[in-house]
Amino acid sequence: MRIRGFSHHTILVLTWLMLCIGDAAGNRARHPAEGLRVNPARLEAGLLALSEIGKTSQGGVSRPAFSEADLEARRFVIGRMEEAGLMIRLDEAGNIIGRLENANGMLRALAAGSHLDSVPEGGRYDGALGVMAAIECCRTLKEHRVRMRHPLEVIVFIDEEGGLVGSRAMLGELDDRGLGVIAYGGKTVREGIAAAGGNPEKIPTAARSKADLAAYLELHIEQGNVLDAGKIRIGAVEGIVGISRWEAGIEGAANHAGTTPMDSRQDALLAAAHLITAVNRIVTAIPGRQVGTVGWIKAEPGAVNVIPGRVSMSLELRDLSAEKVDSMFLEVEKEASLIGQKTKTRISFRQPDAPSAPALLDPVIRRLIADSAADLGLSCLEMPSGAGHDAQNMARLAPTGMIFIPSVSGISHSPKEFSRPEDVEAGANVLLLTILKLDSR
Amino acid sequence: MRIRGFSHHTILVLTWLMLCIGDAAGNRARHPAEGLRVNPARLEAGLLALSEIGKTSQGGVSRPAFSEADLEARRFVIGRMEEAGLMIRLDEAGNIIGRLENANGMLRALAAGSHLDSVPEGGRYDGALGVMAAIECCRTLKEHRVRMRHPLEVIVFIDEEGGLVGSRAMLGELDDRGLGVIAYGGKTVREGIAAAGGNPEKIPTAARSKADLAAYLELHIEQGNVLDAGKIRIGAVEGIVGISRWEAGIEGAANHAGTTPMDSRQDALLAAAHLITAVNRIVTAIPGRQVGTVGWIKAEPGAVNVIPGRVSMSLELRDLSAEKVDSMFLEVEKEASLIGQKTKTRISFRQPDAPSAPALLDPVIRRLIADSAADLGLSCLEMPSGAGHDAQNMARLAPTGMIFIPSVSGISHSPKEFSRPEDVEAGANVLLLTILKLDSR
Repeated sequence: MRIRGFSHHTILVLTWLMLCIGDAAGNRARHPAEGLRVNPARLEAGLLALSEIGKTSQGGVSRPAFSEADLEARRFVIGRMEEAGLMIRLDEAGNIIGRLENANGMLRALAAGSHLDSVPEGGRYDGALGVMAAIECCRTLKEHRVRMRHPLEVIVFIDEEGGLVGSRAMLGELDDRGLGVIAYGGKTVREGIAAAGGNPEKIPTAARSKADLAAYLELHIEQGNVLDAGKIRIGAVEGIVGISRWEAGIEGAANHAGTTPMDSRQDALLAAAHLITAVNRIVTAIPGRQVGTVGWIKAEPGAVNVIPGRVSMSLELRDLSAEKVDSMFLEVEKEASLIGQKTKTRISFRQPDAPSAPALLDPVIRRLIADSAADLGLSCLEMPSGAGHDAQNMARLAPTGMIFIPSVSGISHSPKEFSRPEDVEAGANVLLLTILKLDSR
Repeated sequence: MRIRGFSHHTILVLTWLMLCIGDAAGNRARHPAEGLRVNPARLEAGLLALSEIGKTSQGGVSRPAFSEADLEARRFVIGRMEEAGLMIRLDEAGNIIGRLENANGMLRALAAGSHLDSVPEGGRYDGALGVMAAIECCRTLKEHRVRMRHPLEVIVFIDEEGGLVGSRAMLGELDDRGLGVIAYGGKTVREGIAAAGGNPEKIPTAARSKADLAAYLELHIEQGNVLDAGKIRIGAVEGIVGISRWEAGIEGAANHAGTTPMDSRQDALLAAAHLITAVNRIVTAIPGRQVGTVGWIKAEPGAVNVIPGRVSMSLELRDLSAEKVDSMFLEVEKEASLIGQKTKTRISFRQPDAPSAPALLDPVIRRLIADSAADLGLSCLEMPSGAGHDAQNMARLAPTGMIFIPSVSGISHSPKEFSRPEDVEAGANVLLLTILKLDSR
């Protein structure tokens, strides 16, 4: 519900009265400031100004982690935090933490945030939205002199796109190997963190304890097409899916494509084709939102007149349930063994990296997000996040919630990435309301 | 039938007597020398000596066209031709032509031959067998002073592996574009022909007329596994299959592998997989020895976490009947259109090069080859050649026949290429008998 034509103070008083009535009927205390709304024009203007930094000719942004553009975006955001009256510090990993100290008591802080770095040739909303909306929430709370029970932190995570580097540091899991990785911007993570004002020699000090935060919230664009295609305004994220990846190796026999009869072949690419269609069949045969993808394939020797003797290809399975991923993979293995027999090839799988476990987000916070959407008259869907986010690490430190808004046509990691201003506003207001609901619990 | 313990002269006389009896019964004149056999030890020794030229550490040979090893092999073979009493000339393309002038009349020459160049890291038998066996036949005929009706030519074609260069020159179809191609040995064909003693400025003069030759015969290893797996000693080749090649392009939509639900995907690699299995199904659904192969595939962008948006892949169909190839491709196109609908992708085909037409060999000569095998007590199979040979070009100049012997395990173009001495001997004797049968027609 939006009330137009009234000043923010009038709305505040009205809301306060309504909430007293609500309180009498329901059994949960409502925050006196729940009638507050963000300033949508200021938020859009902030996002636009930020998108000028690292802007590309196609209208997207290129702010790979630790690049000049990334560092400039960090300075820009620190300036906005100062205007919003936040107390700012950098942790040893270079994460920016701005704190709104408008709390009465000594409770743990609530936190909201996201990231500023982008993939090369990325879009204007991925990460930037969550940061600018969190700052806008602080500014709205501050200018209406809302007193809260909890302090409120805005966290700008460093190098999200390179593998959730900032939140891994907060978990105490950014090790020497992680510091040695070359980030999208070309520097090693270690060099990048130093350039961003962190202290790579003291990374362990960036780790936070479970006692630090009362909750973490992240507003983000969906980066998929579920909301936009379904004309749904808000996604209340159930969790971030686990990702398991394999490399399948298929051994056949390379042979002359002219002289080898069809029934004498051990065609590794034919076996791979059967396996790719089997993966699709297995993943789509059961209800749910699990996904399975073969993204790359290599057939050797790879000549028009030679039967492929060896194929390697990727296999990726994602779901909120690790058990479901495991059982799908068992099916794939079973099918692979039949395909191997049928095509006289040998199919094996190896996992180059440990799978990332699914991260279930907090169901109470998800309920508060859905309530906030309902309060604002916005349709809302509970859904998994198929992409990774810092929230999946933060979920191990504090109860965590994520709010999605639609990406038009599901496009992300692209200059064409776009979210409508009304969705940006709606998402920021759901963030604000969820913060207030959390504060009043 | 081999008769041991008699001198060659005794055998010759015995054979002569037997043939007179045969003549009285049958209706075809038998050549008085049909009891002759090649000298298997001399043939094996010659092959071994030739295999020392360009020998590789794995036991194969590397004699790419116009390389030092190829030129040395040519000098070696010219020496052997001289020993056999042949009159030798080089044509303008560098083809070596050795002529046995033991004919009584003015008839056109019979010819037999093959090539000396190999693929890089090739085997000892591919090409070399046909050359050395043809020389051995001449030597056998010469040392037994066999008088023939036709002169007999041994032809060593230049640069077979690079695209039947020598026989194309004999057809008058080696043009400037062909002369500019870089051969396996690193030189252009033009440079190579000059280095081999040809005259690249006068290539058209190498063209032969249909009046030149009475027949052409080529003995070759099968380079496939039909004979060896079937324990068949001799292949009487029906023809060299036509080859049609396409590049299939599949347009889908690249998208996030985590956030794109299965039913919203336009997965170009899934479509490709359906197409690969369809090709196999179509080619194997009808009786016959046609083959179909997808040898290379490229999926873009080719990342583990991105749904492939574009795939290109090769498609090759081979058969002795161009109509069958056409009708199989029509089926593939039909299937591709259904796959495109099902996977929301667009599949198109283009032919980068003109297809090579099937070359049917002469049925009368095929009959004589089968008769020769039967005379020698050797099992024989009529079969297509899935690989290309100079014989397919020669078939346009003269009635042409090809004799195959088994390649152990079907291995060719490899250091492991091997044909058993008894098969080498059998093939050379079939070649000799077929020459004699042709001479007496």
